[in-house]
Amino acid sequence: MIVVVKRGQDRKQVDNLENWIKSLGLGVHESEGENSLIIGLVGDTSKVDIGLIRSLDIVESVTRVQEPYKNANRKFHPQDTLIDVGGHVFGGKNFQIIAGPCSIESEKQIIEVAEAVQKAGATILRGGAFKPRTSPYSFQGLGVEGLKLLKKAKKETGMPIVTEIMSEERIDDFEDVDILQVGARNMQNFDLLRRLGKLNTPILLKRGIAATIEEWLMSAEYIMSEGNPNVILCERGIRTYETYTRNTLDISAIPVLKERTHLPVIVDPSHASGISRLVKPLSLASVGAGADGLIIEVHNDPVHALCDGAQSLTPLQFEDTVRSIDLMLDAVNKTRDK
Amino acid sequence: MIVVVKRGQDRKQVDNLENWIKSLGLGVHESEGENSLIIGLVGDTSKVDIGLIRSLDIVESVTRVQEPYKNANRKFHPQDTLIDVGGHVFGGKNFQIIAGPCSIESEKQIIEVAEAVQKAGATILRGGAFKPRTSPYSFQGLGVEGLKLLKKAKKETGMPIVTEIMSEERIDDFEDVDILQVGARNMQNFDLLRRLGKLNTPILLKRGIAATIEEWLMSAEYIMSEGNPNVILCERGIRTYETYTRNTLDISAIPVLKERTHLPVIVDPSHASGISRLVKPLSLASVGAGADGLIIEVHNDPVHALCDGAQSLTPLQFEDTVRSIDLMLDAVNKTRDK
Amino acid sequence: MIVVVKRGQDRKQVDNLENWIKSLGLGVHESEGENSLIIGLVGDTSKVDIGLIRSLDIVESVTRVQEPYKNANRKFHPQDTLIDVGGHVFGGKNFQIIAGPCSIESEKQIIEVAEAVQKAGATILRGGAFKPRTSPYSFQGLGVEGLKLLKKAKKETGMPIVTEIMSEERIDDFEDVDILQVGARNMQNFDLLRRLGKLNTPILLKRGIAATIEEWLMSAEYIMSEGNPNVILCERGIRTYETYTRNTLDISAIPVLKERTHLPVIVDPSHASGISRLVKPLSLASVGAGADGLIIEVHNDPVHALCDGAQSLTPLQFEDTVRSIDLMLDAVNKTRDK
Amino acid sequence: MIVVVKRGQDRKQVDNLENWIKSLGLGVHESEGENSLIIGLVGDTSKVDIGLIRSLDIVESVTRVQEPYKNANRKFHPQDTLIDVGGHVFGGKNFQIIAGPCSIESEKQIIEVAEAVQKAGATILRGGAFKPRTSPYSFQGLGVEGLKLLKKAKKETGMPIVTEIMSEERIDDFEDVDILQVGARNMQNFDLLRRLGKLNTPILLKRGIAATIEEWLMSAEYIMSEGNPNVILCERGIRTYETYTRNTLDISAIPVLKERTHLPVIVDPSHASGISRLVKPLSLASVGAGADGLIIEVHNDPVHALCDGAQSLTPLQFEDTVRSIDLMLDAVNKTRDK
Repeated sequence: MIVVVKRGQDRKQVDNLENWIKSLGLGVHESEGENSLIIGLVGDTSKVDIGLIRSLDIVESVTRVQEPYKNANRKFHPQDTLIDVGGHVFGGKNFQIIAGPCSIESEKQIIEVAEAVQKAGATILRGGAFKPRTSPYSFQGLGVEGLKLLKKAKKETGMPIVTEIMSEERIDDFEDVDILQVGARNMQNFDLLRRLGKLNTPILLKRGIAATIEEWLMSAEYIMSEGNPNVILCERGIRTYETYTRNTLDISAIPVLKERTHLPVIVDPSHASGISRLVKPLSLASVGAGADGLIIEVHNDPVHALCDGAQSLTPLQFEDTVRSIDLMLDAVNKTRDK
Repeated sequence: MIVVVKRGQDRKQVDNLENWIKSLGLGVHESEGENSLIIGLVGDTSKVDIGLIRSLDIVESVTRVQEPYKNANRKFHPQDTLIDVGGHVFGGKNFQIIAGPCSIESEKQIIEVAEAVQKAGATILRGGAFKPRTSPYSFQGLGVEGLKLLKKAKKETGMPIVTEIMSEERIDDFEDVDILQVGARNMQNFDLLRRLGKLNTPILLKRGIAATIEEWLMSAEYIMSEGNPNVILCERGIRTYETYTRNTLDISAIPVLKERTHLPVIVDPSHASGISRLVKPLSLASVGAGADGLIIEVHNDPVHALCDGAQSLTPLQFEDTVRSIDLMLDAVNKTRDK
Repeated sequence: MIVVVKRGQDRKQVDNLENWIKSLGLGVHESEGENSLIIGLVGDTSKVDIGLIRSLDIVESVTRVQEPYKNANRKFHPQDTLIDVGGHVFGGKNFQIIAGPCSIESEKQIIEVAEAVQKAGATILRGGAFKPRTSPYSFQGLGVEGLKLLKKAKKETGMPIVTEIMSEERIDDFEDVDILQVGARNMQNFDLLRRLGKLNTPILLKRGIAATIEEWLMSAEYIMSEGNPNVILCERGIRTYETYTRNTLDISAIPVLKERTHLPVIVDPSHASGISRLVKPLSLASVGAGADGLIIEVHNDPVHALCDGAQSLTPLQFEDTVRSIDLMLDAVNKTRDK
Repeated sequence: MIVVVKRGQDRKQVDNLENWIKSLGLGVHESEGENSLIIGLVGDTSKVDIGLIRSLDIVESVTRVQEPYKNANRKFHPQDTLIDVGGHVFGGKNFQIIAGPCSIESEKQIIEVAEAVQKAGATILRGGAFKPRTSPYSFQGLGVEGLKLLKKAKKETGMPIVTEIMSEERIDDFEDVDILQVGARNMQNFDLLRRLGKLNTPILLKRGIAATIEEWLMSAEYIMSEGNPNVILCERGIRTYETYTRNTLDISAIPVLKERTHLPVIVDPSHASGISRLVKPLSLASVGAGADGLIIEVHNDPVHALCDGAQSLTPLQFEDTVRSIDLMLDAVNKTRDK
């Protein structure tokens, strides 16, 4: 961390600052500039509150050289983290496809979709039971009943399942769920993150709608610092001024994350665009960018989906997308898990 | 709601759509365009899922004419909502100033600040006990202990208190708190909102960092639809590409909200800018824009504040700000509560 | 276009509005809603000023059903536009790679880079002579001298050339340039666009840093409406709150544009990210998303490039990127032009 | 400027970098950190190309301590710049109101509006002759004919005039115009800026729709570095994800600019919001934030304005706004010029 002190400051105040820094167990290197004094902090600064230093009257600016995340940082963990979900591995050279309906609606629906996506190449089944909806008047999901149906589909097909958890109060209902999803709206629900950090179940951590990559990794850090190393990051689009698509898929986040962190990174092209016609091109783009997998909405009857139908593929469209993905994986040196 | 059907659609599919709309208790008006068929939905469409209609293959676009919020809508409740907090009223011609430290640190600190801001003109005391922090390694607040100190300051000064609640699991600890604050990160923590909707305590609902005005009002609607009409909206800056200030204070949101909703609207200039030097000009700007009040961070020793010190005023700066506010209130036909 | 009239309006005012609409040669369809009156405008509304109608006191909202662009609209021109540049075709199943240095620095440099990128697979040579720079103190390009060197490289290698034009005053200097580039900062320099519309030379129109897709297509429309149909669109990243990359590559814009317009669409991964390590993954992502080509910065000595070195590939890295692109083109049914 | 070198770099490469820095006439201070080497650049770094250093393989990050603008920088010019326009001074304790129609339509219109706004308190007359419009099919202004009418209104009323110039080719037509406006779309039309820098006429420089404050000041620097010190900055809203208002007025930019630069700063509440009902509250907010003036659209017949009618005030509404402004100026220690 580098602290630039404004010119003409009282030496005593500078000494106070340096003493305080040393009291945190850090070393100090001073360097004189023409218009300013530069103080370098030496040691592990990941736990230093940058805002606190910035707040001091004598300080012009503070720059972090070291990233504030540690457990998630590739610098300290150069190898890819591999996360095994019922025999299907996320990370490394593996490419996983998660698929399923936005909302679970009935036993028939979830099992039909599960069988269709499994046949077409999906290895993990997704399905929403508790749905975060902007309006209190929109369908909120089948809740506990939906979870039961999802588990039934798991039993029928042998596919591991992933579904969203919105509140730490309900955690007991989510036993037997193979991956717990934290939605974009809860990416900074820190009580929930800490609670999930006490489990060992893999967590699918979606990016908040306006979260920076650093904030996102800090949320992963909340989970990991409590003891759960199994975090899968999921890019799902960010909010920008452009309104043609619901969100703007931040495709660059994928290679940036692959550099910064050892955690697996997947993409949700369905939520990112909100338009089913864009799911295939965005899936192929994600492969090209180096993603470790995809999570795609598939519905056996999109027209009657109770939510988000506009972004769901039919099983046929999903099959076609998987076929095209297979044609691209060689170029990125990945193998689709089957 | 207006549905534009793509040209050349099968009449039978259009009939299916219209029958489904009628099954929701709505009327249908058809109008033929050159390139499209226009269907107007007549009746209360606030509970219609716009995404569902948009998802249909035959639909070109859907436009909402009616706002999706009802309880918060000024159209159905033209008079300003007045919310009485220990004799201090939010809304109408009243102007309230909430002030206090970012974090509660000690009994001495919170009581000293409380007395200072009360003397200078604040009517409500703020103070953070549970702090949502981006990093798990930053100071997270004194928690329950902090709440106790805040209540002590209330007893000493007679000032009503406001503090942030982050999880519905802890709601019992917040008894005797006069206003419960929902932070920006929890604006769409729907389980928490619904739980707070079952109380009668006023809720200070901060705007999410990338929330639209409509999403924000829908979150108020979550609280109100459960029975709690006492929602105070708090603009605290949104995330944009500009990084000179921490967030971009959306000053236009104030007059827009005063048109759309009957709820009181206040501004947090401290978090919006993150820079103490900007708190005064942004406070005066908020008065000009028609805000019903302000929530301002004040610390008796900003240099050593454990968090957010850079944005806190000293008691002297706070006094000076209040004096200037008083010079402006006539222009907007408001009276500062004392 | 659909106009929603506020409820309870004077019939005479509504008649005035409808008569004015009819005077523009458009038909009118009225439809009564519960809370509003809906007027559909029938005919070619692309030339109607939506702001004008929105400004009327009696109007609640106006929605465009028809896009405001005509020449660029795929609805009226379903076939892909094919643009031949010295025997290399943009559009259809063709994939073109443009490459070269950010700035032209010397004869040796531009010819060496030209030969290197040609050998590796580029078909068109890029090079900046007039450089738009944020600071008046930064290197502004070699100007006319740079153009001469670029034309020399064209003569030596036989490669068509593309370079940026910043002002209509200098148009005569750009004779013999095969593609004229309009930079992001000039996307709405309407005098320049109109001037270029009077030529027949292909125009590479970069997206403005905060331009919507519709505004971008309207800028293409400025060129096309003056008579020049040869517009190539170039996505180069948009400005968002995220600062890890210089801009955020809007990968979704590619499939959206391929639907909306018949014009070729290429991607500039170098400017989008500003980081050379991201150029390869973003190039592959662009292929997956369906782009018709790429424009990539390549420098024979990135360390000493006078500008934008951080985003330039070495010839070796460029070769490697082209090899990977070749492995992906089958999946999107494209062929790289050689 | 501070350069952080990655750990474990070859000493020879570091020496090369330092020698190159010294060759620019700058001094070098080295400081060793645990994980990195820190190099401080001493001297006038405003002309150093930060991108060039960032591009070097051995560099981890570069931070500017000194701002890249010099002429516009308050550090080197602590006193407010005062700009006299026909006896009306911008800057210091003065508050100026510019008003007039969006587009000049006829002699009768411009003179009527001029007389009305002058009577109500405006000191400078605005009016658009050349209009930058997103669509080539929208009304583009009366052009040279409009300029003539504007000059006639100046003669009739004695008010100085301001109007937008879009191209340096037309500069001769703008003689006798008292303030030349550069619109948001041309904020980085560097050829135009440089040309205007050779005049002595005051320039009203609007902020680009997605320009940072630093980029904006760099555009002022383009004008000033050519010799014209008379730049008035005009905040007019930035593009964000929020769509209730056309743009988001960045009210914080005003106090930030007043700190960073000595140039006068005014606000355009009409374009910022695009909604006439918001012009008054945003005007008052701008006063509170410390603006040196306002530029407001006023039309004698908003319903029939050829463009932007939705954001124009009637003369009566304008009068009412000025009256309220007068009630607030004391609080910010300003006096409205009359």
